[in-house]
Amino acid sequence: MNYYSDYIGKMAEELSRLPGIGPKSATRLAYHIINMPKDQVKILTDSITDARENVRYCKCCFNLTDSELCPVCRNEKRDKTQIMVVENPRDMAAYEKTGKYNGVYHVLHGAMSPMLGIGPEDIKLKELIIRLQGDVKELIIATNSSLEGEATAMYISKLVKPTGILVTRIASGVPVGGDLEYIDEITLLRAFEGRVTL
Amino acid sequence: MNYYSDYIGKMAEELSRLPGIGPKSATRLAYHIINMPKDQVKILTDSITDARENVRYCKCCFNLTDSELCPVCRNEKRDKTQIMVVENPRDMAAYEKTGKYNGVYHVLHGAMSPMLGIGPEDIKLKELIIRLQGDVKELIIATNSSLEGEATAMYISKLVKPTGILVTRIASGVPVGGDLEYIDEITLLRAFEGRVTL
Repeated sequence: MNYYSDYIGKMAEELSRLPGIGPKSATRLAYHIINMPKDQVKILTDSITDARENVRYCKCCFNLTDSELCPVCRNEKRDKTQIMVVENPRDMAAYEKTGKYNGVYHVLHGAMSPMLGIGPEDIKLKELIIRLQGDVKELIIATNSSLEGEATAMYISKLVKPTGILVTRIASGVPVGGDLEYIDEITLLRAFEGRVTL
Repeated sequence: MNYYSDYIGKMAEELSRLPGIGPKSATRLAYHIINMPKDQVKILTDSITDARENVRYCKCCFNLTDSELCPVCRNEKRDKTQIMVVENPRDMAAYEKTGKYNGVYHVLHGAMSPMLGIGPEDIKLKELIIRLQGDVKELIIATNSSLEGEATAMYISKLVKPTGILVTRIASGVPVGGDLEYIDEITLLRAFEGRVTL
């Protein structure tokens, strides 16, 4: 791409490093930003810098937050004896949106993957084990239903079961509103295996 | 969306103002940026700020450039008597990529649109007319083949023809490699009307 401006080229190059932004979108974004009012550009870059500088991990559940404890861990009404393990803050936000879960969370920031060389020490697992020494009745494993998520779930389950804490896994099956003919075989099989009496 | 961090919320909001980035992609990007190394985030924001601060219009053709004149206008080998009028710098870059055009350009930075209240005075048209007082033999109108682009082409053509300068319009028709059955009727009609003898 011929930019006639090294500055635009550099900006497009940096933007194209972001996930889901290819060279063409990066160019479009770069030209758009060049035409934005200067104060608007400053608001954009400041919002990025401020977030990167000020956001940190909740010291209890490792959710991303602005203060020492995240709003969920700070909330006295939440049931601290029930911990849901998720892979990342977005998964946690997804469960929070349901508005029906009253326990707390633990964010692993990843899942184990022997293929990518990600072991138990590379995710926030040690920190989870330390939390379990407190008063915890149930550990709900809500890692993704992927190879890595399942492997992580199995690993945690084996590690925690001997402590006597109830370890559960979120159900796997046909999504609500899903059309059977478009659903993959593994999901169909899981839904069959996990069938419940009506 | 529940972010647990006002900083992430603010960043996602600002990112979602960019074209082609919806609330979901903005959230993904925001979480990705939070996990990027700090120096990498600084490189990204600096590249945006530097570009916005330093990029300006070429004083001849209004292309975006880092210096007074853009590389095309600076190039002594380019034919200054042939001017191609385009709507924006991306269109100019597209023609430059062909590597076959040896004239210079004029970037309008938009097209006339009565619907949106964009008149001749809102695009770089006055500046084009001033340029035409120099030694210009041909004006090639390469505005888009949209309603606005066509209206702008007609307007410029009527304005310039009395000066005796040759005014041409890039051909409209079936794109190379295009499958006729998927091409809209107006393009097919244009291709028919613009048919050439073999």
